[in-house]
Amino acid sequence: MSMDALQEKIRKMKNPSMVGLDPSPELIPDCVLQKAFSELGETPQGLAKAYLHYCRAILEALKELVPAAKIQTACFEALGSYGVAVMQELCAAAREMGYYVLLDSMRGDAPHIAALYAQAVFGQVEIGEKRYRPYVCDAVTLNGYLGSDAVKPFLPYCKEEGKNIFLLVKTSNRSGREVQDLIAGDRVVHTAMADLAMRWSTDLIGRSGYSEIGAVMPATDSRALSTMRKKYDRLFFLVAGFGAQGGTPKGVSNAFDEFGHGAIVTASRSILGAWKKAETDGADFAERALEAAVKMKKDIGKYVTVI
Amino acid sequence: MSMDALQEKIRKMKNPSMVGLDPSPELIPDCVLQKAFSELGETPQGLAKAYLHYCRAILEALKELVPAAKIQTACFEALGSYGVAVMQELCAAAREMGYYVLLDSMRGDAPHIAALYAQAVFGQVEIGEKRYRPYVCDAVTLNGYLGSDAVKPFLPYCKEEGKNIFLLVKTSNRSGREVQDLIAGDRVVHTAMADLAMRWSTDLIGRSGYSEIGAVMPATDSRALSTMRKKYDRLFFLVAGFGAQGGTPKGVSNAFDEFGHGAIVTASRSILGAWKKAETDGADFAERALEAAVKMKKDIGKYVTVI
Repeated sequence: MSMDALQEKIRKMKNPSMVGLDPSPELIPDCVLQKAFSELGETPQGLAKAYLHYCRAILEALKELVPAAKIQTACFEALGSYGVAVMQELCAAAREMGYYVLLDSMRGDAPHIAALYAQAVFGQVEIGEKRYRPYVCDAVTLNGYLGSDAVKPFLPYCKEEGKNIFLLVKTSNRSGREVQDLIAGDRVVHTAMADLAMRWSTDLIGRSGYSEIGAVMPATDSRALSTMRKKYDRLFFLVAGFGAQGGTPKGVSNAFDEFGHGAIVTASRSILGAWKKAETDGADFAERALEAAVKMKKDIGKYVTVI
Repeated sequence: MSMDALQEKIRKMKNPSMVGLDPSPELIPDCVLQKAFSELGETPQGLAKAYLHYCRAILEALKELVPAAKIQTACFEALGSYGVAVMQELCAAAREMGYYVLLDSMRGDAPHIAALYAQAVFGQVEIGEKRYRPYVCDAVTLNGYLGSDAVKPFLPYCKEEGKNIFLLVKTSNRSGREVQDLIAGDRVVHTAMADLAMRWSTDLIGRSGYSEIGAVMPATDSRALSTMRKKYDRLFFLVAGFGAQGGTPKGVSNAFDEFGHGAIVTASRSILGAWKKAETDGADFAERALEAAVKMKKDIGKYVTVI
C-alpha cells in the first residue's frame, strides 16, 4: 500500500486511527494466558502463543473499523525467536485482513546494514536460488540520526512499490526535546530532520499531495503539530502518544489538513488494555477493544472531519 | 562484564579490537553454504545454520586473540525467527568462549518500550512464575535521539550488573554529519549527545576511570577522535568503520588515552571476508579470519601500546 492508499482507506473508513500492537503480559487477560500456558507451559512459546491469540482477535474485531495496525517489534523480540515467529505471523495476518501494516522498529543503521534491513522488511531475502519474505508490511519507522545514506536504501521501495517510511521527527516522550529541540541556526534539530525527509521526497509525492515518507509526531504537543502541519504540508504525520501517554482528541486535530487528511493517530495500550479499564475479567477483551476503538474514532471525529 | 572488565581483558590480551559478526550470504564460502543447504534446503533455516556454523567457527578461531564480539542483529533478523534463534545461540556461545558480547541493534524507543528492551537484553523476561533470558550479552548500542527517559531504563543494569550501553555519538558513514554535526549553540549535536552520556554517567565511573556508558565513534575521522578523546575522557569509545569502511590504524590511535586504554576498534567484513581477499575457495575461512585479526592487532599495535 502506498501513502495514497492509506489516505484513501482512512477516507473510506472515516477513521484516521491506527491500532498499536504492543502486547505485554499485564495487558493479556488471565484466561488467555492460562490457556496458552496449559498447552505450552510458562515458556516463551507459551507467552508468544498468548500474544498471537490476543493480537489476532483484536485485529479481527477491529478490521471493519480501523484502517491500520502498528506492530511494536520490541514486544515480540523480548520472547526471542518464538516472539519473532509470532510477529511474522501477525504481520501477514494483519495484511490479509486488509490492514495497512506498520512495523515499528525505529531502526537506523549504517548504509550496508540499512540496505539489508530494507530488503528484509520491504523486499525479499536471497537464499541461494530461492527468495524469502520474512516480514510482510507496508511501512517501517526509522531513526534518521545517521543521515541520508542510511535512509536511501529504503527509497527505491517507496518509489517502486509504494512502501513507506516514517522518520522520527519529534517524539511524545518527555525527554524528546533534549536532542530534538536543540537550536541549530534558524532551525531546531527536529525541523532539520523534517527538512531531510522533504529532501528525500523528491519524486515521492503521491496524488494525495503527501510523500511516501512520513514523520512521527507527538500527540502530546498540539502546538508543534500545528506549526509543523503548516510548514511541512507534504509530510504525512504518524501521531503517537494518544490516550495513555496524554494526547487529546482536540490536540491531535492540529495534525490534519483542511480536508481532515495527512495524519493518522496511533493508540496501543488504551485499546489493548481496554478490558482492564472496564474492570472485567478480560474474557470480553475483544469487544472492549472494539468499544475503545469506536470511542477513539468518535472522539477524534468531534474535531476532525475526513472528507 | 563491566567496562572495567572489558578494559582489563583488552589489557591482558594486548588487543583493543572487536570482531563484528555481520554475516551475509556473499561472505560465507560455498562449501559452508552448500553443506547447510543440503541438510535444510535453500531456506531461512538453511542459511541461518550456515551463519551459525560460520560465525561459531570464527569465534572459536579468534577466542585467544580477540577480547570482544559484536553481533549485528539486522543480519540475523533478516532470516526471521530462524535467524533470531541462531543469534540467541551465538550470543550464548560467544559469552561461553569468554568474549565480551555486544549486541549491535542501535535501538532507541519510547520509555516503556526501552524498559522492555533493557529487560530482554540485560535482565530476565517474566513469564508467569518463570524467568526467561532471551539474549545473553554485556552491552548494546543505543540511539539517543529520544533523550534521557528512553535511556534511563538501561542504567540500573549498568550500575548493578556492570552492563554497558554504547550511545551513537558520531558515526562513520558519509552522511552522519548531516544531523550529528549540526551546530547547536556552542556545541554540535554529537557533542550534545556525548554531554548526555556524561550526565547519565554519574555513579557509573569504574576503577579504570571510564563510565559504563560508552560512545560509538568513527574510525574514519581521526580528528574527531582526537578532539573527543580529550573532551570526554570518561567515555569509552567503540570505534567503528575500520578497514572496509576506510579507518586506518594510525587514525584510530587517536581514540586511545596515554595508557592505550579507553577504546576498542571493531572490524567485521575485513575479518569475516578475509578468505575472499586471499582468493581461496573459503575452506580455510577460519584461518584466514585469524590471520586478518592478527594483522589488525599488529597494525593497531604499531600506534597504540596497551599498558
